Amino acid sequence: MYKESCIFCRIVRKEAPSSIIYEDDDVLAFMDIRPVSEGHTLVISKRHYENIYDVPRTIICKIYEIVKRVAIALRETIKPDGISIVQQNGAAANQDIFHIHVHLIPRYDGQKMRFGEANSIPREKLDLVAKKIKSAL
Amino acid sequence: MYKESCIFCRIVRKEAPSSIIYEDDDVLAFMDIRPVSEGHTLVISKRHYENIYDVPRTIICKIYEIVKRVAIALRETIKPDGISIVQQNGAAANQDIFHIHVHLIPRYDGQKMRFGEANSIPREKLDLVAKKIKSAL
Repeated sequence: MYKESCIFCRIVRKEAPSSIIYEDDDVLAFMDIRPVSEGHTLVISKRHYENIYDVPRTIICKIYEIVKRVAIALRETIKPDGISIVQQNGAAANQDIFHIHVHLIPRYDGQKMRFGEANSIPREKLDLVAKKIKSAL
Repeated sequence: MYKESCIFCRIVRKEAPSSIIYEDDDVLAFMDIRPVSEGHTLVISKRHYENIYDVPRTIICKIYEIVKRVAIALRETIKPDGISIVQQNGAAANQDIFHIHVHLIPRYDGQKMRFGEANSIPREKLDLVAKKIKSAL
């Protein structure tokens, strides 16, 4: 359940850097390196499953329990007007990393969501945002 | 846990028409009346919760278990290239009905997802699509 070539598997193993806000035996939550907006978080299964078709029922539950907790923490800390929760399956649906992940994207009145168009931002900045969100988890 | 003015509460009570593909004590799945693409399905909690902040943990699990089953049924019947799974919280995130619902949107290579721009389509057509998806659930 580990795929050498998968960046999320490498993040799970701490072989690649990430700004983590939550971790348990099954689930990891960390900042998207190319945030659509500040606070854009990814919640993933630690084990490598490509998408929702493959993930066991119990793991889906665990992922979305954490999604809920992160949503509440985002609301308290980043204070967006709304949150989009998005999980893409397949390249046709703009899935870019083929390891299941749920996006939590803070949204603001009058602003469109420009998925997949953002630039990566420096690690120090991501770490600061992560710290803020983590404080409310 | 029932809101008179809520169209989804009325659908749950069968006071408003819908093309249902799945129902149990807690969860209902039916066709979006304004599908972004054929097979666009909504999975909702039967009880009225506005969004993810309010939904109990157990209900979130139940909703996403059904989301997974519907995703697999869509893959088998509608055969899209991908599926976007989207849950919007707040008007700023394009939430239109303030009763929690998860969208499953079939996606195709090279086609953008035009959220909230589609027209409603006739009930008979929705019923036919529903029947097809239901056969694989």
